[in-house]
Amino acid sequence: LVSKLPHVGTTIFTVMSKLAAENGAINLSQGFPGFDCSPELVAFAERYLRTGFNQYAPMTGVPALREALAQKTFELYNVAYDPDNEVTITSGATEAIFAAITAVVRPGDEVIVFEPAYDSYVPAIELNGGIPVYVSLTPPDYTVDWQAVSEKITDKTRLILVNTPHNPTGRVWTADDLQQLATLIQERDIWVVSDEVYEHILFDGRVHRSLMTHPLLQERTFVVGSFGKTFHITGWKIGYCLAPKELSTEFRKIHQYLTFSTVTPIQYALADYLKEPEHYLHLSDFYQRKRDLFLDGLRQSRFQFQPAEGSFFQTVSYAAISDEPDYELAVRLTKEIGVASIPVSVFYQQKNDYRILRFCFAKDDAVLQEAAERLSKL
Amino acid sequence: LVSKLPHVGTTIFTVMSKLAAENGAINLSQGFPGFDCSPELVAFAERYLRTGFNQYAPMTGVPALREALAQKTFELYNVAYDPDNEVTITSGATEAIFAAITAVVRPGDEVIVFEPAYDSYVPAIELNGGIPVYVSLTPPDYTVDWQAVSEKITDKTRLILVNTPHNPTGRVWTADDLQQLATLIQERDIWVVSDEVYEHILFDGRVHRSLMTHPLLQERTFVVGSFGKTFHITGWKIGYCLAPKELSTEFRKIHQYLTFSTVTPIQYALADYLKEPEHYLHLSDFYQRKRDLFLDGLRQSRFQFQPAEGSFFQTVSYAAISDEPDYELAVRLTKEIGVASIPVSVFYQQKNDYRILRFCFAKDDAVLQEAAERLSKL
Ligand SMILES: CSCCC(=O)C(=O)O
Ligand SMILES: CSCCC(=O)C(=O)O
Repeated sequence: LVSKLPHVGTTIFTVMSKLAAENGAINLSQGFPGFDCSPELVAFAERYLRTGFNQYAPMTGVPALREALAQKTFELYNVAYDPDNEVTITSGATEAIFAAITAVVRPGDEVIVFEPAYDSYVPAIELNGGIPVYVSLTPPDYTVDWQAVSEKITDKTRLILVNTPHNPTGRVWTADDLQQLATLIQERDIWVVSDEVYEHILFDGRVHRSLMTHPLLQERTFVVGSFGKTFHITGWKIGYCLAPKELSTEFRKIHQYLTFSTVTPIQYALADYLKEPEHYLHLSDFYQRKRDLFLDGLRQSRFQFQPAEGSFFQTVSYAAISDEPDYELAVRLTKEIGVASIPVSVFYQQKNDYRILRFCFAKDDAVLQEAAERLSKL
Repeated sequence: LVSKLPHVGTTIFTVMSKLAAENGAINLSQGFPGFDCSPELVAFAERYLRTGFNQYAPMTGVPALREALAQKTFELYNVAYDPDNEVTITSGATEAIFAAITAVVRPGDEVIVFEPAYDSYVPAIELNGGIPVYVSLTPPDYTVDWQAVSEKITDKTRLILVNTPHNPTGRVWTADDLQQLATLIQERDIWVVSDEVYEHILFDGRVHRSLMTHPLLQERTFVVGSFGKTFHITGWKIGYCLAPKELSTEFRKIHQYLTFSTVTPIQYALADYLKEPEHYLHLSDFYQRKRDLFLDGLRQSRFQFQPAEGSFFQTVSYAAISDEPDYELAVRLTKEIGVASIPVSVFYQQKNDYRILRFCFAKDDAVLQEAAERLSKL
């Protein structure tokens, strides 16, 4: 069998999580909370499990969840998606990203990808015969160079992938970024997939600029979200796509044949849980404290960093400490000082190595303090 | 946005289930149990939900479930799959089918599809640029015409899709079918996806001939299974793929970017529940009783049928009663006598209408009796 993805090996998340486990290291590599979700959410799930909500959900998601999500979206962003035709529940944001890319991309289409990029984007493009066209974001700011983007756009450009707050850099798009993007695509047949799974995690008073808040972008964009990242349930694998009817119709045709539908009792539990805004509005404060705790611990070290603007990831430069390749250093730190991280070069096509590691700070305070202490010894 | 699946409308399962609900009809259309799963299985799921198993599972599935499944497979079929490299847990059988097709099929490849065919096969082939090549099974026997299959095979044939026990006809492959298939593909680069989601539901003493039990086929086949169909949890969306290491490696590369992983607490619950063979070995008896109950009720009618050999579907011919198109009759029966079914023509590319309806008999006895009574009035 000749591989359709010959360059894909074991994902870095699996590699580093496994290495962390083998070495009894603190695992700040793969992005998931080191603490449990709320018992109230578990109780909701149990209620539906016990009372017979165990057969297929509707293909698009259970109405109660689509309605609760449309309601929340309207309250937060003042954008009205029709729950019947414009909201689709998926088996995680990964499925939503794959489905949206598949709905749009045909053989020969070009897709603009900002890198460092989350690892599922490019394989999804390639499996659809698309051609990724890279625009690099570079440390320390990782800002988008809009001139560079405009130079990469051709008649074949069909899709742009956006991710704000950004994994791995924590960068958050500004209102100006939205306007720049809108100006670039307004006269063209270009669609957008916007991965906004960290929409509720922004720091230092920043505001999430969802692409849906710009009217021209809203019409062209598949907005992807994740209940897993928001409610500390990455293992429940449940996300969603919000898009205008025309886009949602095509999205759903793909979703129908990828997974058909998503776990029924969990959908009902989230419909109940979503109704209380405090369940997600506290997240920015919650994670900002953790970011600061971790960074306070790192301040006596020779690592250099700009505090993350959003997400639960912090990138740090070790250029002042070592000129080892980032992958080697990440492995060595796991084995020798017991802290696992992600080498950021893996998120670049050409493995650009700016001597940066990514740490996930969605962990208990004591774990973050211990990790910072160990790292400071370097 | 130009559709990549222009012919796909709302799936027949959604259409008929909705029509049934609107008309308060007995819903024997979409294939799901009308009764709940075992409280013991729910209790297992609750245990893991409550005790913090709520973050990402490993991409391939939790080891306990892969091991339990490999063990069960060995005991039942005497075939040893390595749980680390040859067993992958997926978000339902639908995802497994999509991933296996995607792992193999490239633009221009031909794929043999037996029709009537489950509705997700052809879109999955087409999204990968493959060309479905149809071999029709015809009533009343729906047996495979191996001469016809051999005439459809060309240098471009890359994959054959098998489904036994068969949805919608309930046909079960024999040892001779396996041998015929093996003979056809042995000198060629042809792979097989075998949808065996009804593996535990066979009637009148029949034995499930999993493709893995034929050594030559085992090497070439992605065997797809479903916990949803076996344990009355279609809404939990959990299935799997068993395949030799070389095939599983490519399968996993696709799965990783489709959904990454599957609901963690449910995986652990199934690992526990799988250990007791009585949890699935009783299924054939359980559903044979239901099939017979339904057919006994139909015997005073003018419907004609051969009892299903397996699955929880029964096809019946109404040629002696009416010459309405099957789709129209299915709609009319839902509205007028309150029994929803699936018109079998939807499973043929050319909508071949042999005047056959499919009824799902995974329902409570009283419901089946009432449905048969209503149908007998026709
Ligand atoms: C799906 S595993 C990766 C989780 C994640 O989003 C990350 O670590 O970047
Ligand atoms: C995924 S909904 C369809 C369920 C089913 O297998 C059928 O009715 O044939």
